[in-house]
Amino acid sequence: MSCCYGPLGMELRRNLLQQWWLSVTGSTQQVFGINTLSSSKGTATDGLRIVESEQLKHVFEQKELSNQQLLQKIQTLIQRSPSLRTGFLQGALEQFVPSLELVNRKLPFGLAETGLCFQPSDGSGCPAEVTQASLVWFCPPRTSSQWLDHWNRQRLKWWRKFALSPSDFSSSDVPEEELEEAASRGVRILYRFPWGQEPVETLWSRGSTELLHTHNGVRAKLQCRDGRKSVPHVISVTGNMDRGVMAFLSNSLQQLKKEDSKKKMLQRKVLKLHPVLAPVKVALDIGRGATVELRQVCDGLLQEFIEAKISTWPGYLETMPTSMEQLNTKYDEMGVLFTVVINENTLESGLLLVRSRDTTIKETKHISEIKSFLSTYISAADNL
Amino acid sequence: MSCCYGPLGMELRRNLLQQWWLSVTGSTQQVFGINTLSSSKGTATDGLRIVESEQLKHVFEQKELSNQQLLQKIQTLIQRSPSLRTGFLQGALEQFVPSLELVNRKLPFGLAETGLCFQPSDGSGCPAEVTQASLVWFCPPRTSSQWLDHWNRQRLKWWRKFALSPSDFSSSDVPEEELEEAASRGVRILYRFPWGQEPVETLWSRGSTELLHTHNGVRAKLQCRDGRKSVPHVISVTGNMDRGVMAFLSNSLQQLKKEDSKKKMLQRKVLKLHPVLAPVKVALDIGRGATVELRQVCDGLLQEFIEAKISTWPGYLETMPTSMEQLNTKYDEMGVLFTVVINENTLESGLLLVRSRDTTIKETKHISEIKSFLSTYISAADNL
Repeated sequence: MSCCYGPLGMELRRNLLQQWWLSVTGSTQQVFGINTLSSSKGTATDGLRIVESEQLKHVFEQKELSNQQLLQKIQTLIQRSPSLRTGFLQGALEQFVPSLELVNRKLPFGLAETGLCFQPSDGSGCPAEVTQASLVWFCPPRTSSQWLDHWNRQRLKWWRKFALSPSDFSSSDVPEEELEEAASRGVRILYRFPWGQEPVETLWSRGSTELLHTHNGVRAKLQCRDGRKSVPHVISVTGNMDRGVMAFLSNSLQQLKKEDSKKKMLQRKVLKLHPVLAPVKVALDIGRGATVELRQVCDGLLQEFIEAKISTWPGYLETMPTSMEQLNTKYDEMGVLFTVVINENTLESGLLLVRSRDTTIKETKHISEIKSFLSTYISAADNL
Repeated sequence: MSCCYGPLGMELRRNLLQQWWLSVTGSTQQVFGINTLSSSKGTATDGLRIVESEQLKHVFEQKELSNQQLLQKIQTLIQRSPSLRTGFLQGALEQFVPSLELVNRKLPFGLAETGLCFQPSDGSGCPAEVTQASLVWFCPPRTSSQWLDHWNRQRLKWWRKFALSPSDFSSSDVPEEELEEAASRGVRILYRFPWGQEPVETLWSRGSTELLHTHNGVRAKLQCRDGRKSVPHVISVTGNMDRGVMAFLSNSLQQLKKEDSKKKMLQRKVLKLHPVLAPVKVALDIGRGATVELRQVCDGLLQEFIEAKISTWPGYLETMPTSMEQLNTKYDEMGVLFTVVINENTLESGLLLVRSRDTTIKETKHISEIKSFLSTYISAADNL
């Protein structure tokens, strides 16, 4: 299944990828980001091929060829056409040698990459596009098992950090019969969806076979300064970030029952996304008062929030009348952390109302302190 | 031409894309990020097709078919296979209708997307992969010309902001004979490479034809609340970010002549990348002194920098002896803004040496103020 993202989903996935990147490349371990090509000329016999229509048309136009010759030409053309990557492992294995120079042949280190990968369709005819996040870790053979455990702990901790109920994420060893061919051990980080558990990230301890194969078995190119001249072992950590987005959406949605003023039971839907993941941090709206002046105040605040890189929903630009209750319902479903309301009071005293998504409590704050309040709130949640 | 990026290039392009994104979606104009699929089933007759090897193999295995029948089957299979996108315009045109709801049918607004696009090869057999950054702007017909000028000014200002010699970036109208079919006006932002000018970003005023075509001419779906029920005009802004990286690399490289201590003329190569673009902001090295203790100090600083999201090169982990002069040469070529050297003096007094890439001056600072010095320097450059 491939998905298209609208503005909010896109921002959520962007935040998730950004956090993944920071946690992997910004750890005290040496991890470098790389960017490899998504198509390559390989000898793979299966998978997805990129065929140029023009070239094919050209073959079909060769009227002097027999059908048999045409068929052969087409077969050759397609066999020689580049394939689309299904993951980032191969690219990282190829980049191992140049990267080794960067660290003066010292292990361990890792190569990280995020982006699109492609998988053959399950019959629909359109290939599945998956946004993957990949860390390929190179370490001395004797410590590879410890490193697998290390990354497993780190990654599980990371997923749980952003969850409303952390225990929905768990990790479990891959049973021997499900191990990938090259792997000696595997661990999956699973999320408990309402319909069952699915892996969001998978770790494999892969030995050195694939690395050697990629570099045609030339051990000298691959050896490191660890005294034993050993060829490193490879650990791959691969996250499916589209499924990760689904996991956090599913994990964050709370349906609460509440009574309205007329004692009618209502359902309140709140998307309690973690503050650093929430696509919109604050909504800016206006209440009662002189519209022109209130809008000017909002323009100023919007500018201030943008400069502080606080993602803001400019609700005050909306000219259709909406009740505050309707707005709150909408913002809760969008996962907006805070709603700031500017009204005539603000023009006089500089005071405004700040409503929290999580507590539904409205607090009065001075306009001069609102930006730093929001920044502090978000970065405090980040550092928990 | 497609390129693979190593750690430094990748970080440079990442910073460039991040700045593009902030400048476009973080302006006071309403711009939403989206994410569309890179393959689609269309009726296009040319371009790149994704073919599943398995399906094709399956066709070839049907021995009961005549060669003529086989050829026809293959032709149909390929005609029906999805194409790879060459740009983001089509995706944005399709997302226009759902996004219109988000802004309550009010113009203008824009849809932004960055990522990989594919272009047919120039004979090499491998498709060109280009990282594009795209803004598709929807506005009332009567203001489309002003908006084209607005975005032209904004984008040119943006490119120049990060340049060492801003006049190498210029913008010029596309001559009538080079206009794209749908476009009534076009502007290119050009960079003067040593080998001539090349466009880094292109803006087209495209009218409403393609938007109408995408939505099968159903005007009612596309009309906006501007009193005239008009179908919006489309302005596309497309940056080639790989070429942008090349432009900034070419623009930032300075070759300076200097005399060494023995009056020999040396050439100093410095990559004077803008502080927000530089892939590494600071290098951490150790000078004379008790190695174990000095390393502990470095570990602490590294941790501090990571938390402040200052990208750091942990030079002190290197165990091969290198002279400070060699290190400076290397860091200058990498574009590292500052080199921090910890030595025995630091252990006693807390003082360390900070060398600036741009001035080559070494200053003494206290260890407690170094993090905020770096953060302030980078954000000041950002806000110029």
